[in-house]
Amino acid sequence: MRIERLAIIGVGLIGGSLAAALRRQGLVGEVIGCGRDEANLIKGVELGVLDRYTFDPAVAARHADMVVVAVTLGATDAIFEKIAPVLGAQAVLTDVGSTKGGLVTRARTRLGPQFPRFVPGHPIAGGERSGVAAARADLYQNHRVILTPVPETAPDALARVREMWEATGAQVASMDPAHHDEVLAATSHLPHMLAYALVDCLAGLGEGGGAIFDYAAGGFRDFTRIASSNPDMWRDIALENGPAIEALCARFEATLGGLRAAIRTQDGAALERLFAHAKQARDAWLERRAREGDAGPR
Amino acid sequence: MRIERLAIIGVGLIGGSLAAALRRQGLVGEVIGCGRDEANLIKGVELGVLDRYTFDPAVAARHADMVVVAVTLGATDAIFEKIAPVLGAQAVLTDVGSTKGGLVTRARTRLGPQFPRFVPGHPIAGGERSGVAAARADLYQNHRVILTPVPETAPDALARVREMWEATGAQVASMDPAHHDEVLAATSHLPHMLAYALVDCLAGLGEGGGAIFDYAAGGFRDFTRIASSNPDMWRDIALENGPAIEALCARFEATLGGLRAAIRTQDGAALERLFAHAKQARDAWLERRAREGDAGPR
Repeated sequence: MRIERLAIIGVGLIGGSLAAALRRQGLVGEVIGCGRDEANLIKGVELGVLDRYTFDPAVAARHADMVVVAVTLGATDAIFEKIAPVLGAQAVLTDVGSTKGGLVTRARTRLGPQFPRFVPGHPIAGGERSGVAAARADLYQNHRVILTPVPETAPDALARVREMWEATGAQVASMDPAHHDEVLAATSHLPHMLAYALVDCLAGLGEGGGAIFDYAAGGFRDFTRIASSNPDMWRDIALENGPAIEALCARFEATLGGLRAAIRTQDGAALERLFAHAKQARDAWLERRAREGDAGPR
Repeated sequence: MRIERLAIIGVGLIGGSLAAALRRQGLVGEVIGCGRDEANLIKGVELGVLDRYTFDPAVAARHADMVVVAVTLGATDAIFEKIAPVLGAQAVLTDVGSTKGGLVTRARTRLGPQFPRFVPGHPIAGGERSGVAAARADLYQNHRVILTPVPETAPDALARVREMWEATGAQVASMDPAHHDEVLAATSHLPHMLAYALVDCLAGLGEGGGAIFDYAAGGFRDFTRIASSNPDMWRDIALENGPAIEALCARFEATLGGLRAAIRTQDGAALERLFAHAKQARDAWLERRAREGDAGPR
């Protein structure tokens, strides 16, 4: 596994951390960054994450053997159109988008004959901080990366992308794009919708001005942390993965309805059963994670 | 402010941390613990949090000038009945329950002539760990404590409890019991219901056995942390503060319904507005907290 020229289109936390990780492993020759914020790109060069930069995705992608598109979902299609004409026959293209179904379908048209060189991907990592200054070579250590190849995807391209992510310390899984979108709707998209809806709902309560939050403690802070995520990015995800999120919302509302009914009828046994079941499921998940070497906070 | 004999009925994280904080300030003579788990009580003595212990709440409360009931909500009424006959005329009684309205109403009957000596209280602090071994003298530093006195509450008793909590570094606020229950329904009880409902809902998905959680990341872990809370304790809270929680659930479902409609109609502007509003409210709250000296993680 070696990349001679790596193009990172969109040099933020995700793209920057990937470049930093590969560089640390000595697996990459030259790294070219592409973005719109020159201060951020200069920072990337200063930090040693990039060797040089350009504002033009086509310039970045030309002669690169690995092109990673790490822009927001809504901007990905336009980037694909710009780089399709210059992508080398043996080059590999991948992305990091949080939803895959619609993106893959559109890529088939936009990339045309280059489509088999595209390996759709999604590293399940991130943070509230953004920009290349937040990049960390160990961001992907023990994190999952999901690849969603389709029948047309070239096996050598898939293997290259898998090796690239494994070199960062990530655990790489494969599944089809629709399944990915259902899984992520459950573990990421629905929780974000609930956190945003809760904070939005409470911000309008009582004395107004969010005074009610002054009595919130650590549990609330943790529960709502994801409501401090980037609104643009989440608008794109909600639009793109709408049907899967909608279906899960309906399922969630049914569970919440059952919980409300138990409160209304003062059914303590049903409440305890539901709470205990949830606690058990979460605690079992944490134990599996701990065994896999994730040493993060609980 | 000095307590000659402090009785802690229920020596867990909350009661133990209070005793430890007062002891560190040199404000307490003797601390008597009362509980059912002898190993935990022995631990309390070993840690220097308690001077001695008993299994009988009446024995603990007799001759104490400050009695703190820190048992679970469902066990509080029975404790009040046991200590009412032995509570000294100048003694002060307080509790730490997470809901106040029903508890105060029942205390009026159960405590009878001693009711004015009872100052209902609620320290907004805690953690997933429990037992006296988790107690920390600094647990209440910069945390809120809400007292919910009623017209009968003796002013000197109220002043004593306020001074006691202020001595631990807490910020003490007063409000009526019903308002407390509405505020806590919003900032604590509803979030717990949502976290429990989400994990419960997802645990039954897909391949079953919670396999879907394996693709969850840090955001999910934070969002669902409170679903690892004690099911017994939360059953009691849900039963006790049912109407306020129910009312907020309805409000939350209306907000979530609006969000779902925006997803269904692909209304990106409405989604972005809702997400940005929530982010702004949360970030403003974090800034206020930071100014108040809370240095915890964001």
